[in-house]
Amino acid sequence: MPRPSIYDVAALAGVSAATVSRSLGGKSKVAPETRQRVLDAAQLLSYVASPQASGLASGRTRAIGVVVPFVTRWFFSELISGVTDVLRDSGYDVVLYHLGSARDRDSFFSRMPLARRVDGVLTCSMPLTDEHTLALRALDLPYVSIGSPMPGRASVGIDEVAAVGAAVNHLVHLGHTRIGYLAGEPDDADFGFISAPQRRRGFELAVAAAGLEVDPRLQASGRYGTRGGASAMASLLAGPVLPTAVVAEYDELALGALLTLRRAGLDVPGDLSVVGVDDHEMAEVVDLSTVGQDVHEQGVTGARLLLQQLDGAPAGDGGAAEAVHVLATRLVLRGSTAPPAGWRTR
Amino acid sequence: MPRPSIYDVAALAGVSAATVSRSLGGKSKVAPETRQRVLDAAQLLSYVASPQASGLASGRTRAIGVVVPFVTRWFFSELISGVTDVLRDSGYDVVLYHLGSARDRDSFFSRMPLARRVDGVLTCSMPLTDEHTLALRALDLPYVSIGSPMPGRASVGIDEVAAVGAAVNHLVHLGHTRIGYLAGEPDDADFGFISAPQRRRGFELAVAAAGLEVDPRLQASGRYGTRGGASAMASLLAGPVLPTAVVAEYDELALGALLTLRRAGLDVPGDLSVVGVDDHEMAEVVDLSTVGQDVHEQGVTGARLLLQQLDGAPAGDGGAAEAVHVLATRLVLRGSTAPPAGWRTR
Repeated sequence: MPRPSIYDVAALAGVSAATVSRSLGGKSKVAPETRQRVLDAAQLLSYVASPQASGLASGRTRAIGVVVPFVTRWFFSELISGVTDVLRDSGYDVVLYHLGSARDRDSFFSRMPLARRVDGVLTCSMPLTDEHTLALRALDLPYVSIGSPMPGRASVGIDEVAAVGAAVNHLVHLGHTRIGYLAGEPDDADFGFISAPQRRRGFELAVAAAGLEVDPRLQASGRYGTRGGASAMASLLAGPVLPTAVVAEYDELALGALLTLRRAGLDVPGDLSVVGVDDHEMAEVVDLSTVGQDVHEQGVTGARLLLQQLDGAPAGDGGAAEAVHVLATRLVLRGSTAPPAGWRTR
Repeated sequence: MPRPSIYDVAALAGVSAATVSRSLGGKSKVAPETRQRVLDAAQLLSYVASPQASGLASGRTRAIGVVVPFVTRWFFSELISGVTDVLRDSGYDVVLYHLGSARDRDSFFSRMPLARRVDGVLTCSMPLTDEHTLALRALDLPYVSIGSPMPGRASVGIDEVAAVGAAVNHLVHLGHTRIGYLAGEPDDADFGFISAPQRRRGFELAVAAAGLEVDPRLQASGRYGTRGGASAMASLLAGPVLPTAVVAEYDELALGALLTLRRAGLDVPGDLSVVGVDDHEMAEVVDLSTVGQDVHEQGVTGARLLLQQLDGAPAGDGGAAEAVHVLATRLVLRGSTAPPAGWRTR
């Protein structure tokens, strides 16, 4: 059976196709009894209006483009969850662009498939070149950036420098003086987490502020994820100076570090303290102290900011279109941090 | 500056709007030199064809609907990753429908926003009622189900019964006779993992096949995720009979169980062996034995099956539209399983 067309509905209801369109679109210029006749006819015929056709008429697609570099990382799946929950409840579809490599990203921004496909755009912790930023601006669509602020545009995120600073201060207060740093390495050329340089800066600033030396021999990096953390920790164990505590750029690295330490027969926190950043779901499982951020809430906040723009706040008015939300972080103390060995007896 | 229209491109190239449309759409009935003139004109004007308009012309949207119950669970983020990688490389957008609750799901299937919005549909481990299934069939679109087979339609998954059976057999071969089971509980009414009943059946069948009794006192359940596993394990510890080993329905439950056992001061595997199903990324970190499945590959396979249908295999021809792919699982031995205490000295 061919799908019923708008003309079938119009014929059955005894009105014009334009009236069917206005009735189903919820516009106000249709008499209630006419609208009801159209709705009855549409239901009888199981007629489904094409969102594309109605989108062309209204100029709206009722879809939002969400651009992410990873989907399997905890941070991004939490973000997507927060974003999709809000947008779905507001009747928007989410068109997900998963740009897993620098090549995908460049190809995406040169083709720019978002044009006329979506009503607004959310980018989630995307490292953007000037060219990418220009391409986004040229779209002239409501836009919110999560995790990577763009001057003059709305954004949501945390204070990355302060978050890592809190982890360092915790170790300093416990009495640690040889504090190492485990960093993530980009997966393929220049495609690391956008927060990486800020977190490293937070580490170095806090170490210096505590009157300690920033010793490059106490820093190591590994490819992102738990494997990266495992190999970075192994590098430190193979180095000339052993830290008494390490801060990991994010929890997944810390989880890998714990794996290496267990394999090496070292006790956490007896021999070495470990603290991460994020409060990843698994941090509780392995009893990891960390600096927590609420990523789901960042997704929710970002989606709401975008909806405010879609609902009428004009771009560039200093309101929803330029709002900068910085969400709080908190130190979560668990069993992976303690004073350094021998500290109590000094 | 207003966006250039198709007529601007046509005027500059000296052809009709229809020729512009055919040229940019990659159709074959345009002379190469004409197509090149159109492409040059389009580039000069920074013309972007509206995917909606071209979709209306071709009847295609170049978008695929991907329907998932969760996005933050490891299984689903791996699936989405596999699916989006394949579809993006084939020029399809992914419209992600995240139906996080039974309410969202019912509302989705009654509104059915997929109609005319997408060219095909992938559902990922969605528990579907007969009504939902009918709504999907009524769409009459290319369709692939991942993780939850639908009679007569293409699907991808693993043998859930055999996977859990492998975990049980491993424990039986080690000498365990009191084997417990940790199951996930639905998060809100009837919205659990679709694989849950099959995995439980796999457990009970394998236990019975080994000549052991299926003892309900050795089974416990908790709300999904690591917390659920932690509380389910605690229930077993509070029960009248202590198992010497437990099988968890999926790894996240096993991770929670390990947390409870550590808090209780019990040694794994010295006092109790734990084995999961999935080979979650964190299984390696906590040294968990498990039965692994390649979820990313299931996403890739599902997306390819859908592309085959889109590329011409008519629905219901017994080919791509009805293909059933069952992917292999494998026992991954790590440090959380060992013979029961005292077994060697008996």
